[in-house]
Amino acid sequence: MRILGIDPGYAIMGYGVVEKKGNSVTLLTAGAVTTDKDMNMSDRLKALYAGLMDIIAEYQPQEAAIEELYFNTNAKTVIFVGEARGVAVLACANSGLPIYEYTPLQIKTSLTGNGRADKKQVQFMVKKVLGMDDIIRPDDAADAVAAAITHANTGEVRKRLMQR
Amino acid sequence: MRILGIDPGYAIMGYGVVEKKGNSVTLLTAGAVTTDKDMNMSDRLKALYAGLMDIIAEYQPQEAAIEELYFNTNAKTVIFVGEARGVAVLACANSGLPIYEYTPLQIKTSLTGNGRADKKQVQFMVKKVLGMDDIIRPDDAADAVAAAITHANTGEVRKRLMQR
Repeated sequence: MRILGIDPGYAIMGYGVVEKKGNSVTLLTAGAVTTDKDMNMSDRLKALYAGLMDIIAEYQPQEAAIEELYFNTNAKTVIFVGEARGVAVLACANSGLPIYEYTPLQIKTSLTGNGRADKKQVQFMVKKVLGMDDIIRPDDAADAVAAAITHANTGEVRKRLMQR
Repeated sequence: MRILGIDPGYAIMGYGVVEKKGNSVTLLTAGAVTTDKDMNMSDRLKALYAGLMDIIAEYQPQEAAIEELYFNTNAKTVIFVGEARGVAVLACANSGLPIYEYTPLQIKTSLTGNGRADKKQVQFMVKKVLGMDDIIRPDDAADAVAAAITHANTGEVRKRLMQR
């Protein structure tokens, strides 16, 4: 099964596609759709949606895993990230992908066994699980891949994008 | 010029299309795209996007006016409204509509001359400007029409969706 992981953001939208076969997980692609701060928000959202649609068309994932948002940032930024997250969810929905949400705590626990693991530990485990020589860059791409691996590994306990 | 007004929300997305000719503004349509609370968020966003795309295809507006979000609600809701707002902006952007943002203060001031006007006063003025016998229902549709009228009336002082 191919899983698209997404780390939502409006300046940098991290993505990664992994393939799960039996107990092994391999990386197909990882990267980020980025938008320039000189663009207005509608052009940024359009570019983010188009970028994700291109990735979905090229790699044909069957499911998507998306990181839940932190709320510890200022309200103005929350709206922007929410808007970006909305178009990311829409890109998956319009492509027929079921979407599963994971909190940072779930992702850290799934990958390292420690819900308070730092970014370096998560990146180390992502690298190890995928059998790679180097960590994934940028961070946003690594976080997206971590979400995809979490979904690949958690199986039945995964949580469907919640009712709300 | 035809203007699409939007009052963003994930349960109720208000919309209205007005036509400006010279100094007169007439209403072409007003209503709301609604989603059921039993739907998951990805299906809701998909339905909201599709609903707005249908309105845009049918009424062919040339510009869009969207209400800026309040931040005085809880952070969880802000994210959901942000996601809904993101797909509304995307529907306009993917349809080639320039998008203009108006705060509740700007809308109230433009329509009633009083930035602290209550909902009834705004609805009264919307009804009056459009020469209607009744107020527009639901409230979300009336708010969307109010945004569209504000854009029709403010002309050069209108503010392009801000850089951010």
